[in-house]
Amino acid sequence: MSNTAATIIIGGDAAGMSAASKIRREQPEERIIVFEKGEHTSYSACGMPYYVSGVVETSEELIARTPEQFRENMNIDVRTRQEVVAVDPQTHTVRARPTGSDAASEYELSYKKLLIATGASPISPPVDGIDAPGIMGLSSLQSGIDMRAAVERSRPEHAVVVGGGYIGLEMVEALLELGCEVTLVDQAPQVMATLDEDMAQIVSDYVGSLGARVLLNEALQGFEHDTSGHVTAVVTPNHTLRADLVIMGLGVSPNSALAKQAGLSLGARGAVRINRRMETSVPGIWAAGDCAESFHRVLERPVHIALGTVANKHGAIAGANMSGGSLEFPGVLGTAIMKVGDLEVARTGASEREANDVGLRCRTAVIKSRTRAGYFPGSERIHVKLVVSEQEGTILGGQIVGGPGSGKRIDTIAAAITGNLSAWDLVNADLSYAPPFSPVWDPVQTAARTLV
Amino acid sequence: MSNTAATIIIGGDAAGMSAASKIRREQPEERIIVFEKGEHTSYSACGMPYYVSGVVETSEELIARTPEQFRENMNIDVRTRQEVVAVDPQTHTVRARPTGSDAASEYELSYKKLLIATGASPISPPVDGIDAPGIMGLSSLQSGIDMRAAVERSRPEHAVVVGGGYIGLEMVEALLELGCEVTLVDQAPQVMATLDEDMAQIVSDYVGSLGARVLLNEALQGFEHDTSGHVTAVVTPNHTLRADLVIMGLGVSPNSALAKQAGLSLGARGAVRINRRMETSVPGIWAAGDCAESFHRVLERPVHIALGTVANKHGAIAGANMSGGSLEFPGVLGTAIMKVGDLEVARTGASEREANDVGLRCRTAVIKSRTRAGYFPGSERIHVKLVVSEQEGTILGGQIVGGPGSGKRIDTIAAAITGNLSAWDLVNADLSYAPPFSPVWDPVQTAARTLV
Repeated sequence: MSNTAATIIIGGDAAGMSAASKIRREQPEERIIVFEKGEHTSYSACGMPYYVSGVVETSEELIARTPEQFRENMNIDVRTRQEVVAVDPQTHTVRARPTGSDAASEYELSYKKLLIATGASPISPPVDGIDAPGIMGLSSLQSGIDMRAAVERSRPEHAVVVGGGYIGLEMVEALLELGCEVTLVDQAPQVMATLDEDMAQIVSDYVGSLGARVLLNEALQGFEHDTSGHVTAVVTPNHTLRADLVIMGLGVSPNSALAKQAGLSLGARGAVRINRRMETSVPGIWAAGDCAESFHRVLERPVHIALGTVANKHGAIAGANMSGGSLEFPGVLGTAIMKVGDLEVARTGASEREANDVGLRCRTAVIKSRTRAGYFPGSERIHVKLVVSEQEGTILGGQIVGGPGSGKRIDTIAAAITGNLSAWDLVNADLSYAPPFSPVWDPVQTAARTLV
Repeated sequence: MSNTAATIIIGGDAAGMSAASKIRREQPEERIIVFEKGEHTSYSACGMPYYVSGVVETSEELIARTPEQFRENMNIDVRTRQEVVAVDPQTHTVRARPTGSDAASEYELSYKKLLIATGASPISPPVDGIDAPGIMGLSSLQSGIDMRAAVERSRPEHAVVVGGGYIGLEMVEALLELGCEVTLVDQAPQVMATLDEDMAQIVSDYVGSLGARVLLNEALQGFEHDTSGHVTAVVTPNHTLRADLVIMGLGVSPNSALAKQAGLSLGARGAVRINRRMETSVPGIWAAGDCAESFHRVLERPVHIALGTVANKHGAIAGANMSGGSLEFPGVLGTAIMKVGDLEVARTGASEREANDVGLRCRTAVIKSRTRAGYFPGSERIHVKLVVSEQEGTILGGQIVGGPGSGKRIDTIAAAITGNLSAWDLVNADLSYAPPFSPVWDPVQTAARTLV
């Protein structure tokens, strides 16, 4: 392939491949090169806990499109196992090499336009022995494949999950289903830092009821190993927790080292700073996905939120703008949803804590209702918390915890925030009702009714 | 009880009792009298098909609050089996009598403020023999009790449901579950007149797949009877359909005769004309619920929509204003949801047909997607239709038909319409995603993406 300047994308997952696909649609003749340091493109990271537990049978199911499909169907030059090690904005070049090889294998390519979509990596705390066999995290698709293989091979009896976020809780469920005795450890006083403590309490109580031991306010201090070096225990200030398997679920940090080395400004939590057109501080270079920051529509400041929904939107907008468009991404609400056992958990916008932290004066309501008419079979408990502005009652955020059918109601609140609705507007919104679906006042309206 | 002027409410169901409760909260000392011509207050009309089928076991479960509870807990003077036969706005009096009695039993009461919440009644077409035994409709709670008793007593083998609206389709399901051979007849070329034909087709195909026979473009012409007078068949232009049981599901018309006799203006489909404060054309008289019209926020005209969600909102606003408040009801979107078998059906805002009928120029998209990530167990087909304004792409309406987990997504669209969002706004809204809940682009966004 010639060395004519191309549109180059670093990173072949959600953001990178969304952008590549958009560019291909907008510019049928453009030369598009994607560097992906791993083996896979466009896989569902969010599906990995379900692959580890066996709910999803094969890792292939998690792959939306293979590198071959992008090459053959969309004429996108996807180069897997190729790592970009440097970007030079002066000369408009990137230096790449096969993943794991040394500088002798490096080569240069010129770019016309460059997208940095390098993703994020699991946070690995500086604790001795963290690289020992038996201690694992979920990052690449390969890490999920490795984890399932390890679980099937060694049949762990005692598992410790460090970190009570989404991945941590999903892994608790996965490991319980595999028959492990599971302990969840979090140094915070609550699980799920993106919820307020009152709502998080319902989640940790439920996780306890599933049979997991939940230890809060317990920081990871170290590990114990057997003579072969394999982990045998997790050590915290108050406990030594037996463990054949340790899952690290402490969240992720943006892979922004390459961007930083290239002189790009960094922003929230070290993510690549971008404007609403996904442009970085350096002309000709865009950033998108888990490596980049986003503007939070309620908190009105840059945040770092590493989620597939955001990455897909980032990628689509970056791709359009790299093709000559001028689209603006209006920002995020930090909307997220997960389930653990039969409990659905979702949140959007500002939590009460986040509102307080940025000085947004707010009022809140927490209500209990039912997912269906109370008399209808399968009606389950649902808790809704709403956060509204003190004066106007404008909806700032919501949190939902409840049985099957609860979680997706968060989208009603997310749409309400997007439309700048007040609690009164939500009370009067014409939401749907029939006995198999809802009480006559939807639970999100019941919460809003206490705030008008 | 003395004859001091009181706040009087005619009708003791959703609208009437919501208003009564609100007035009690606002005015702890006010004398509140509710006339209810039947036996029951505040029951779930929407739950009746599930009571007939036995999904809901007892009729008591459908009663949210009994007359005694209103009397004892809220000091509301609920008078059941008392019918108001005349209203005189000149003298501020109502004339009432025990239901079924004659003029000799009549008495007068003065009102300070009056709410007309007389509900709606099933449409009964002028066809000979429609009152024959075996031909039934769902109106009062008693009608549901009667229908279940009739079904249990006579074990019908051949049932015909006339009218393919919500109640009709729910009754088709109920009757199939009871083991009947069921034929659904509708004179329109589609079931569910509130859907566009393309979406309604999916519903009627599904109903057919459940084992019901669906006959469209077939108007009811008459009935056949046995020597005892019991119905034996339904006659249409092309068929004589054997029937031990006939369910009439032709929709409802507002009970506005009393209001008309009192000189109140009527509006959409003969419903009582009201303004946004739920005031009728006569000072001192409000109207609410199924007997009253509503303002449609997208079609921008009065409509008659008889649903519990609307009745509850009407009642709450009327009650506040009858207590000296000045609240305005912003109107309705005609949002509705139902299920038949495992198929969920929902709609909100303007259908394509409705938009065309009122001259709203629009574009539409119909997409197929999945309720969960495609690889996740339980992922089901979902169809979404979006209607947006031709120029700005403002969302005007939506329709959803799909498997479990589909229907409640209509609330996202309803909230988006309420917030005046465009398709582009919806594409970029931060909706929730995790594999057990949604594809990474929620299906409502997938529809919106085809319209930007």
